[in-house]
Amino acid sequence: MHGLRVPTFPVRPARAWRLIGRLACGLAIIVLAGCQSASQAESDPPIPAGVAREAARLRDAALLGTDAWELTRDLVYAAGPRFAGSEGDGRAIEWSLATLESLGFSSVRVEPVRVPRWVRGEERGEVVAPVRHAVVLAALGGSVGTSDAGLEAEVVMVDSLEALAALPPGAVSGRIVFLNFPRLERSRVGAAYRDNGRLRRDGPSAAAARGASGFLMRSLGTSAARVAHTGATSYRLDAPRIPAAALSNADADLLGHLVAAGAPVRFRLSLGAESLPDADSANVIGEIPGSDLADEIVLLSCHLDSWDITPGANDDAVGCAMVIEAARRVATSGRAPRRTVRVVLFAGEEFGLAGARAYANLHAATLGRHVLAMEADFGSGRVFRLNTWLENEALPLARAAWQLLEPLGIEWGENNAFGGADLMPLRPHRVPFLDLVHDGTHYFDVHHTIDDTLDKVDRRDVDVNVAAYAVITYLAANVPANFGRAPAAGARPD
Amino acid sequence: MHGLRVPTFPVRPARAWRLIGRLACGLAIIVLAGCQSASQAESDPPIPAGVAREAARLRDAALLGTDAWELTRDLVYAAGPRFAGSEGDGRAIEWSLATLESLGFSSVRVEPVRVPRWVRGEERGEVVAPVRHAVVLAALGGSVGTSDAGLEAEVVMVDSLEALAALPPGAVSGRIVFLNFPRLERSRVGAAYRDNGRLRRDGPSAAAARGASGFLMRSLGTSAARVAHTGATSYRLDAPRIPAAALSNADADLLGHLVAAGAPVRFRLSLGAESLPDADSANVIGEIPGSDLADEIVLLSCHLDSWDITPGANDDAVGCAMVIEAARRVATSGRAPRRTVRVVLFAGEEFGLAGARAYANLHAATLGRHVLAMEADFGSGRVFRLNTWLENEALPLARAAWQLLEPLGIEWGENNAFGGADLMPLRPHRVPFLDLVHDGTHYFDVHHTIDDTLDKVDRRDVDVNVAAYAVITYLAANVPANFGRAPAAGARPD
Repeated sequence: MHGLRVPTFPVRPARAWRLIGRLACGLAIIVLAGCQSASQAESDPPIPAGVAREAARLRDAALLGTDAWELTRDLVYAAGPRFAGSEGDGRAIEWSLATLESLGFSSVRVEPVRVPRWVRGEERGEVVAPVRHAVVLAALGGSVGTSDAGLEAEVVMVDSLEALAALPPGAVSGRIVFLNFPRLERSRVGAAYRDNGRLRRDGPSAAAARGASGFLMRSLGTSAARVAHTGATSYRLDAPRIPAAALSNADADLLGHLVAAGAPVRFRLSLGAESLPDADSANVIGEIPGSDLADEIVLLSCHLDSWDITPGANDDAVGCAMVIEAARRVATSGRAPRRTVRVVLFAGEEFGLAGARAYANLHAATLGRHVLAMEADFGSGRVFRLNTWLENEALPLARAAWQLLEPLGIEWGENNAFGGADLMPLRPHRVPFLDLVHDGTHYFDVHHTIDDTLDKVDRRDVDVNVAAYAVITYLAANVPANFGRAPAAGARPD
Repeated sequence: MHGLRVPTFPVRPARAWRLIGRLACGLAIIVLAGCQSASQAESDPPIPAGVAREAARLRDAALLGTDAWELTRDLVYAAGPRFAGSEGDGRAIEWSLATLESLGFSSVRVEPVRVPRWVRGEERGEVVAPVRHAVVLAALGGSVGTSDAGLEAEVVMVDSLEALAALPPGAVSGRIVFLNFPRLERSRVGAAYRDNGRLRRDGPSAAAARGASGFLMRSLGTSAARVAHTGATSYRLDAPRIPAAALSNADADLLGHLVAAGAPVRFRLSLGAESLPDADSANVIGEIPGSDLADEIVLLSCHLDSWDITPGANDDAVGCAMVIEAARRVATSGRAPRRTVRVVLFAGEEFGLAGARAYANLHAATLGRHVLAMEADFGSGRVFRLNTWLENEALPLARAAWQLLEPLGIEWGENNAFGGADLMPLRPHRVPFLDLVHDGTHYFDVHHTIDDTLDKVDRRDVDVNVAAYAVITYLAANVPANFGRAPAAGARPD
């Protein structure tokens, strides 16, 4: 029982033991990995097979054809342009209530919202020297008007806010600043629009602070058609409010060429724009009541208003049509969803987000039970990506959901979902977002212009999108464990 | 000397002789064909080698870049819309004179023309029932206006002039007829526009003759942008003159849907259009003087006027730019052309063809010595075909010319060239035409609309086109034998 001899190995004993140890460790790692993987396979999948089957059935049924295009048409043709608080907005609210009722939604109602009211009036602009050229323009939303006589002044051109800031004192005093940057380029995610939004928001006050009497800019749109792109601007409190408008791309080319040619260029701007007292509008809501988890809310949304100059077929009639149709299809799937699916058509998204704020205030007590929120507000282009805004623990569920979207040509994206403008007030409440990202290549050809008409909405794209919204809605309403809460960081990750 | 025996053949003698005869005839045909072909090869080619070489050099030089795009820009930006007899037309005439002078043309001059003057004034239209929708429309050229109060009436929709004619008596009395046909389809040769031109020309009077108070039609254009397409209409003497306008495609879709839905649709039309006394305009002319055949004229043309609502970059600033640039390049080719190259920028093509008629009258004595006439008036699309309007004897020369165009991707076409609207008065004089047929796929997206801006003119296409015009111009001015006279038949062959 003594004298156990260490056998003679061709390697030294210490090294031999180290080798054995390493082999053992390696083996252990492999075994453990196997155990882990077996344990995962044995645990419940995030989406029960029956739920996944029904989601896939809803998806495939939508590909056979949906009513979303017809809903888009009916809203656009029934209401026309529907600036929040306008007559058209009122018609859109009536249409929405009647439509949600007729489609069998529950708790169909309005939640009144007071909205800022701005009217465009008559507007026109022309180059008056060196040669007369009438141009196509649109006042920026919220702009003050000119006097009845209009404003005529020499044009000073800059290509950026930085260039404006760098001008010598007095260079723009009493003049019209023309912010003329390169035409926005199309992209699937519409990056150019997002990246240049501050030009429209900050430009007028930046010019006014340096003494300008008026502000013109190239349209923040990608259209080659001779249409001007509107959208909200804002005025700083420490600068005069000056009239501000966007020129069509072709007219910006013209004005840019004339100014660059060197001879003084004079422009006459006449805007009838004015702000009126706040007006009445409303968020319109319809629900599919949940069953055992009815107090948890899956929020599907869009905005009902449009800019005043446009039928807003893509922005955002089609968004409302797609979420209504997706929810309707979920409701007809055979049994009640476990959670409540709530469709909200927000008021006043384009000008002040009053509907979004009103919703968040009125429903503050239940935002913690909003288990998912989505807004369809990026046109009718085909969804090509799923982005998320979730804690890491919820990503496996999202990824499992995505696998049901993959047959639609939808790729897995990033965990930086935006949600939508109307969902911003939900962000501090850590409401999870899933973005079905629409192809926006041609969205900014029509967005905020008179060209956003029904013929720019493709039936097939819309059907595919409904399929995607229906899948996510059905899953969110029926999976055993929901998406948890969103990350605490308030800011958009990107 | 007698008893000549007929040898015994396995065939009967008569058949043998017939066989020999046939063989001999066949041989003779082959020999003769050979002689003919040898004689052709030995005769002078229709284009001498030196002339062909220089034409090819001009062609290839143009592909390195021309000034035609800049000329288009300069005309459009210097003049703006230039309805014949308007201020813009005056600026265009001034620009043309200065430009032709500065480019070294000879005999630069105007030939005054009195043109019919029509002004559009303010115009607007809206559906007022069942729902208010402002629409985008344009009065047809020459339309009468409405009263200041406008015209409001119920809309009766038809899809063709035949359907209008088939309506029961009284069906349209006091109403607005809406001629709503399927959206025109794009094609390389713009067939849909040509084939449906009578709807615009004949529609208003056809409706008025049945008692209608107003006339609306879908735009005769292929654009998906929300722009209305104008163009000349005409009134019959035996029917009241009623206001007439075209709706943008998207607005025609809307109105069509509303009328088809069945509820009465009322429309309010307000047109400020009126005819004024005839005004002054002018054909603008510049020449490259010929040498030994200077009294023979090669006519290169375009029209200087545009519709009142459009910068007319494609219709027809670019046409003028291309023919000016092609002629300029021929002039700088090293030696004077043998024949005189005359560039004519016609007045008033869009509304009455007064310039074309004035030219034919003033130059009646020399039209027999116009050895070729071409008009560039089908936009800036790349030339893809050469059509001819020649007697058969001249086709070998045309085909030899075409071989110099083939490297530009231009195909040999048919002997049914149209010439151009301004060349119609030359047809009875049997002036030969060669058509460089432009790709018109997107021409009717912008034609006669506010969208016909400079950004719709592609530099590269224009350079290729200048190459083609320069080749034909150079050849026509320098070949020994010209194209002869055109066929006597007055009508366009197709």
